[in-house]
Amino acid sequence: MPGSAGALLTDLYQLTMAHAYFREGMTETAVFELFVRRLPPARRFLVAAGLERALEFIGALRFTAAELEFLAAQGIFAQPFLDYLSTFRFTGTVHAMPEGSPFFAEEPILRVTAPIIEAQLLESRLINIIHFQTLIASKAARCVIAADGRRLLDFGMRRAHEGDAALLAARAAYLAGFDATATVEAGRQWGIPICGTVAHSYIEAHDDEEQAFRSFTSGMPSRTTLLIDTYDTIRAAGKVARLQSELNAQGSPHGVESVRIDSGDLGAQAREVRRILDEHGCRDVRIALSGNLDEHRIAALVSSGVPADAFGVGTSLGVSADAPALDMAYKLQMYADRPRRKRSPGKVTWPGAKQVFREYDTLGAASCDRIVLEGEQAAGAPLLTEVMQAGQAVAASRPLEAIRRDCQHQVRALPQYVLRLEERPAAGNGSQSYPVTRSAALEALARASSS
Amino acid sequence: MPGSAGALLTDLYQLTMAHAYFREGMTETAVFELFVRRLPPARRFLVAAGLERALEFIGALRFTAAELEFLAAQGIFAQPFLDYLSTFRFTGTVHAMPEGSPFFAEEPILRVTAPIIEAQLLESRLINIIHFQTLIASKAARCVIAADGRRLLDFGMRRAHEGDAALLAARAAYLAGFDATATVEAGRQWGIPICGTVAHSYIEAHDDEEQAFRSFTSGMPSRTTLLIDTYDTIRAAGKVARLQSELNAQGSPHGVESVRIDSGDLGAQAREVRRILDEHGCRDVRIALSGNLDEHRIAALVSSGVPADAFGVGTSLGVSADAPALDMAYKLQMYADRPRRKRSPGKVTWPGAKQVFREYDTLGAASCDRIVLEGEQAAGAPLLTEVMQAGQAVAASRPLEAIRRDCQHQVRALPQYVLRLEERPAAGNGSQSYPVTRSAALEALARASSS
Repeated sequence: MPGSAGALLTDLYQLTMAHAYFREGMTETAVFELFVRRLPPARRFLVAAGLERALEFIGALRFTAAELEFLAAQGIFAQPFLDYLSTFRFTGTVHAMPEGSPFFAEEPILRVTAPIIEAQLLESRLINIIHFQTLIASKAARCVIAADGRRLLDFGMRRAHEGDAALLAARAAYLAGFDATATVEAGRQWGIPICGTVAHSYIEAHDDEEQAFRSFTSGMPSRTTLLIDTYDTIRAAGKVARLQSELNAQGSPHGVESVRIDSGDLGAQAREVRRILDEHGCRDVRIALSGNLDEHRIAALVSSGVPADAFGVGTSLGVSADAPALDMAYKLQMYADRPRRKRSPGKVTWPGAKQVFREYDTLGAASCDRIVLEGEQAAGAPLLTEVMQAGQAVAASRPLEAIRRDCQHQVRALPQYVLRLEERPAAGNGSQSYPVTRSAALEALARASSS
Repeated sequence: MPGSAGALLTDLYQLTMAHAYFREGMTETAVFELFVRRLPPARRFLVAAGLERALEFIGALRFTAAELEFLAAQGIFAQPFLDYLSTFRFTGTVHAMPEGSPFFAEEPILRVTAPIIEAQLLESRLINIIHFQTLIASKAARCVIAADGRRLLDFGMRRAHEGDAALLAARAAYLAGFDATATVEAGRQWGIPICGTVAHSYIEAHDDEEQAFRSFTSGMPSRTTLLIDTYDTIRAAGKVARLQSELNAQGSPHGVESVRIDSGDLGAQAREVRRILDEHGCRDVRIALSGNLDEHRIAALVSSGVPADAFGVGTSLGVSADAPALDMAYKLQMYADRPRRKRSPGKVTWPGAKQVFREYDTLGAASCDRIVLEGEQAAGAPLLTEVMQAGQAVAASRPLEAIRRDCQHQVRALPQYVLRLEERPAAGNGSQSYPVTRSAALEALARASSS
């Protein structure tokens, strides 16, 4: 997909640092790792996403003449450095967890090994890319848990944070198990099923609601969805039921596949609408609900046995409203073969190039993760694999459907207490967090890097 | 700026509705208005932004052959409608509040008057554009109030929601009074001053912090900013003070213009660092603070008399963390010369094409707003003006500096109780909200449209 971003979609300090490294002849290899320092209170696990786009960004990073001209005009960059940038190519190695992997605080999900200038210049945009899709996939995975097998529709485009976010949220949500999106371009880009029929304005533009229902259904090639809460949901349900009964009697291919309710007491209305439809012999007309839904409201509706087949989730998904950012960082862990450690209060890092192993019990459930130094072995399967070598992607990007399947499989393999939706209290009942341990060698390296 | 968005960055229902209008021969004029239904608890006013980009979008909206091919493949659109889309141009009229205008709940900030298909097809992306910059400008305006004249720097790029948001947040923040951004591309696009020097990784990549300080300053053409909290802020301040004293003695043009502290107790450290710098005769070295800052922390630091000259604001600005979305809507208010009214519970709209007047007292302070029907007069100045006619922008876009000046002027003209930063309680002390009234004619039209 086209992006708003060139090489200057970065923080200025990446370029002033790169300039300093260049001037000082600091050309040795650095290892940076990308991780989330701590989970928001409203998250018990996260889902890694955005790698495909991150690798595209890394592989395509170039400085255009216009960009170099702008930099030159700032008066802070020497010409030899600008000449260096004019032929810049990333030549390093990237390891990462596959998209769709559940992960936890302080686990590296991506590691860059490259000459320090190259690794440094990736930072701002790399976080920007991985952070957003991870944020949305993590939120979407919670909706999937709440919906318990019912269909989930992404309605988040309009209030997502501008164009890129609108489009990529659809991808991240589908990756984590949503069934369809209203965002047409997401269907074109990634083959995600698209959904949507009418808004309130269509009903209002007609002088009569029933006439609007009849006009719309007659023009669709097969049965469609009608929105029934513009004026009076229950009366509208009666109109739909009569219309569909007529069409059933005629054997018409047109008609109403489902009705959508977008306001008011969704549970009570859904039950009443179900009753009305059933009374008119319209048992196969389904009910979709939307309007300020999030995972908590969905879970409450589902556990109340609401007769709904699908939930549309908009703003709370598209901006991850209860946790609109993750404390994601990209930190130097090694330079010139020496471990490096930031020791700022509250932001202390774990030095060294690291790997994460996930252990499963005999029933296939994930039981614990272990962070080790690269090269160490541990029980279970290593989560980071090489995805880019010498600046080239190691493999073609994975089909989104495969990522989606794997993601749901891996999320379901997490312990039940990790899948709970309520905020994790600091202590007591429900406070258990997924065990993530560190190897003795990593602990020793951290101690040795603390003085 | 390039965008991720073509005509298919929209919700599918816009296209299915347009198809239905086309089929039904519904070609009459519609009036849609864009407004925020209610303010988040953490906002007492909002700042309109995004109009420039919205008008670009409207003027450039076209369907490409590839997009039409994708639509045709869905099997739900008739060929005459696709032919219509292939020559689509917006031909209508747009009225809007200028960017930078403070506004309140239920006030239309943009009004589209056009054949209903054209007005309908704008909806999703128009909200997507206006919502985001309005969200960020509204948050930034609060930081400006808190900073009380000290410099504000936008550090939000990395955790903004992907590329477009990263770039446009810089614009919206500057528009509302920020002084500079770290996002280089925002400097190139809009001439916004850019800032930034070093991150922790630069310090860590050197074996010695003082050597890092010396290397960095010597390579910058003039005095620069150093980050001093990588290991021990107070010791680092001593190193900076000694370095700068030396350079002062030599009359060097290089050296330290300011130090940045990014973690820990910012207030206490700033005071101690100030003392150390002053003791070494470095009274002109300034202090910048960053690290999880928002308007509340800035206000607390400022009111404590912190010796800081600048504040860097990152994630809380870039995602508007305490209110990551606004309840913004774009609703049909008229069709075929008849007012239209949505009556869904909690989402009832005010029918008719409307205008907003703002009244000022004799001292120039805004005292109340009045929403009237278009054509009615009221005291004060009308806020919406025609910005597009027959699909063409009426005037060139305004310089960002002019918008920024006007915005700050208008925000300062709001009553003091509107400028308070704490959440507005539902009742009692501090609960006063800015008065927005409606004309008798508008009230009568709403009553007449309620049956």
